[in-house]
Amino acid sequence: MKKVGVAILGLGVVGGGTYKILSEHREQYKKSHGVDIVVESVLERSKERALSLGIEENRICSNIAEICSNPEIDIVVEVIGGIEPAKTFVLAALNSGKSVVTSNKELYCKYSHQLEKTAKKNRVGLFYEATCVGGVPVIRAMLDNLQGNNFTSIMGIINGTTNYILSKMSQSGAAYKSVLEEAKKLGYAEADPTSDVEGYDAAYKLSILSSLAFHTKIPFTEIYREGIDGIDNLDIEYGKRLGYSLKLLAIGKNEKSGIEVRVHPTFIKSDHPLAGVNDSYNAVFLTGDSVEDVMLYGRGAGALPTGSAIVGDIIYCATHPNHSYSTFNNTEKADSATKFVKNFGSAYYLRLSVQDKTGVLSKVTALLGKHSISVSQFIQESVRDDGRAPLILITHLNKEQNVMRAVSDINSTGFAKVEAVIRTI
Amino acid sequence: MKKVGVAILGLGVVGGGTYKILSEHREQYKKSHGVDIVVESVLERSKERALSLGIEENRICSNIAEICSNPEIDIVVEVIGGIEPAKTFVLAALNSGKSVVTSNKELYCKYSHQLEKTAKKNRVGLFYEATCVGGVPVIRAMLDNLQGNNFTSIMGIINGTTNYILSKMSQSGAAYKSVLEEAKKLGYAEADPTSDVEGYDAAYKLSILSSLAFHTKIPFTEIYREGIDGIDNLDIEYGKRLGYSLKLLAIGKNEKSGIEVRVHPTFIKSDHPLAGVNDSYNAVFLTGDSVEDVMLYGRGAGALPTGSAIVGDIIYCATHPNHSYSTFNNTEKADSATKFVKNFGSAYYLRLSVQDKTGVLSKVTALLGKHSISVSQFIQESVRDDGRAPLILITHLNKEQNVMRAVSDINSTGFAKVEAVIRTI
Repeated sequence: MKKVGVAILGLGVVGGGTYKILSEHREQYKKSHGVDIVVESVLERSKERALSLGIEENRICSNIAEICSNPEIDIVVEVIGGIEPAKTFVLAALNSGKSVVTSNKELYCKYSHQLEKTAKKNRVGLFYEATCVGGVPVIRAMLDNLQGNNFTSIMGIINGTTNYILSKMSQSGAAYKSVLEEAKKLGYAEADPTSDVEGYDAAYKLSILSSLAFHTKIPFTEIYREGIDGIDNLDIEYGKRLGYSLKLLAIGKNEKSGIEVRVHPTFIKSDHPLAGVNDSYNAVFLTGDSVEDVMLYGRGAGALPTGSAIVGDIIYCATHPNHSYSTFNNTEKADSATKFVKNFGSAYYLRLSVQDKTGVLSKVTALLGKHSISVSQFIQESVRDDGRAPLILITHLNKEQNVMRAVSDINSTGFAKVEAVIRTI
Repeated sequence: MKKVGVAILGLGVVGGGTYKILSEHREQYKKSHGVDIVVESVLERSKERALSLGIEENRICSNIAEICSNPEIDIVVEVIGGIEPAKTFVLAALNSGKSVVTSNKELYCKYSHQLEKTAKKNRVGLFYEATCVGGVPVIRAMLDNLQGNNFTSIMGIINGTTNYILSKMSQSGAAYKSVLEEAKKLGYAEADPTSDVEGYDAAYKLSILSSLAFHTKIPFTEIYREGIDGIDNLDIEYGKRLGYSLKLLAIGKNEKSGIEVRVHPTFIKSDHPLAGVNDSYNAVFLTGDSVEDVMLYGRGAGALPTGSAIVGDIIYCATHPNHSYSTFNNTEKADSATKFVKNFGSAYYLRLSVQDKTGVLSKVTALLGKHSISVSQFIQESVRDDGRAPLILITHLNKEQNVMRAVSDINSTGFAKVEAVIRTI
């Protein structure tokens, strides 16, 4: 039977989950796939951590050179995260003729050009299903199933931490800060949650996914990004009353006018399949010219779900010797012919506080009208203690810059102030 | 550039869709995949149909031998449906060294053993993503992404016609027969709808999908099957009041006690992701030991969605020359070690008509109690014109045979009659 040796770099949550799946299913994979997958080594500073997982002491390495020079190792799994030392280790593994399976979204997003070229030069495989949406098979679906389509749109709830926080805020009515603290305690948010709550993590993944969907390089730097750290629960509540759920949504569109890519808090109509994706579940909603709408849904993170994606890549790598290389992820910059649309279109949710005087609503709508913005829904609330009343509007479809100019005009009047602007789908 | 010749057998809805996708995207696939995919021939009795699609007259064949002997053809696409002549044509193509891509669920379900063996003997590929759930990438996901998992459960809304009919019945309140007639007019149901409404189509697909999920042959003949043709809209309405949606659900479970496979109308709790899968959308909900819950959702049928799956298989076949063969779909019968559970467990919805007398409810619950069946929810309605009152119960989890014995006991009393029994999840 074919034997395949694996080294795991980093025994954190995902590394530990990967080790557990591989060791518990070893006999099964021999039977189902005719291949004996053996974890030959792990690279892990904490010997205790490795021993506690049941890994024999002689398999614990302390430097990448040992792994690169070990002829028993065919596949190197990188689950360290971040740029360095992960990048140096991955390049060393590829250059020593090992295939690489990675879950590192930041590394693949920023350096796919260098990693893909190095893999190709060394004729080894490079697999990255686990970079996006945990165990949900979205990357291979785009590579091997839906590849006959021209995609016009990809929308995803692709960050587990922010979806957990927004779901809890919506369910409990609690404020952002207290839910974030609770999420940290439960392990759903990191001690420094910046990458998740400010939308960086979702933007890395959107760069990877939209490049695959649109068959062209979409650099991270082209993505408009806005996080959830400014979200007031008041808006989640008003949104519910208007029939919307609030999500941190990653959006990619490929239309005649060009490509638009953006990550921001978004009100999703309650009857859209993405509106029901709650807690730490994630989902990607694709629209292709042949397949129409497809949604892939599941756990977006976690030891075993992400481990499932890594093990899927390991088995694929072990059983498909001819690796095919990306034709577009080996460039650093976008193709010069690619046009990025920055002034995108959306319907907008606006929460204003207005003076409690007759005619204010008509003045506000007149100001919006000056910018050709019309209103599809609104709620006017009774006066607050400060003598002003909340006024909530949903606009018809309009352009970003137009709406921002209208907001600026309204704010300069004195009788009304825009306190929240949230895009909708 | 590598050139790949394709022949399409049958230019019905799916064959036409496949031709359209291949011809409209030919230049794109050259660029994205480095392969020139050319439709060399079509096998179609109606010359008019072929010409209307823009196919040149010299590419229209009238017999399979012409296609098998044409050295320009690498891949044969079978979209005829049914057993014969499809089976003879597919075997002839495989035996003449052509790879086959098929959307024929009945053929693959009933003859996978023969087709897989023939493909292997001739070292050609056999692809069948399009047999299940249109363009939704469920088969390759199980083969190439989630293959590291032990699946404990697969549940699917995998028949477009019945989901359309049940959704319309639920939305409009109309009776089964009138919705079926409307569905026929709109092309959502065939003139003879037996295969769809009696659950055969879903059972073919469940046989294919559960064999993949559980890594062992699940013959069609082991599947318990019940269609939607006896469904009364009354039950859809009562189900709604109790928080359920009615779907024709295909269920496969792999537990310690054995494997259970069944297709029947099922009440799904409204907060389950499958409850929101409406109209002609389909979805498969998988639970694996690593990946946990995954749902794949999209159009379950139609020219372009199913064409998308076929074209995905064609591109995969053209770019992955080393085909791997199933280790379990090449047997006709189930492995002798496989145990099938027939007395499965479920919670049940029961609609009874009872005599309008004091103490009837307690008599009914006492009879259920004799069979250790307890009730979790009930609705009692006011008396009808016939002097009897509807009584609707949802039981706690119990065993099929037990509940059927209780139903028989109740029906023999005279004071109550069970008018509907529907399983729930």
